[in-house]
Amino acid sequence: MEKPIRGRIEIEFPSEEVARVVYESVKLEHETVPYRRSEIDLRREGKAIIIEFTAADNSALRGTLNSYLRWIKVAMDSFEI
Amino acid sequence: MEKPIRGRIEIEFPSEEVARVVYESVKLEHETVPYRRSEIDLRREGKAIIIEFTAADNSALRGTLNSYLRWIKVAMDSFEI
Repeated sequence: MEKPIRGRIEIEFPSEEVARVVYESVKLEHETVPYRRSEIDLRREGKAIIIEFTAADNSALRGTLNSYLRWIKVAMDSFEI
Repeated sequence: MEKPIRGRIEIEFPSEEVARVVYESVKLEHETVPYRRSEIDLRREGKAIIIEFTAADNSALRGTLNSYLRWIKVAMDSFEI
């Protein structure tokens, strides 16, 4: 894989409050990652969380997606969303 | 969780050919799923694969995303993309 893979994940929650809580939680994790093999932009727009990424290769892509989806899950479980 | 979670994943591959190969492979899996807890629309647009989903709850969301990301990974590994 020589060229990067780009992608975008958009998850829309039932309310803006839920989106904000999940976003703040994921953002904490996002900011503490010391080393990245993917460029990642994380933001919230209304009820939605948007993750845009550019991964160097397939394994970086999977690592990135797994981390962010796990953090979203943890946030949702914590707040019993 | 009473209201569904909606989302969209867009992954852009280095070429339309790669996107087509991955898409055809994921589509085969997509079509053989007998039981769904999420509504899913899978399509290809140029170099991108787009997955739009509505999940009944958090666990359905995770199950859906895990399956589709795994199928994408398997396709990419198989074709050494």
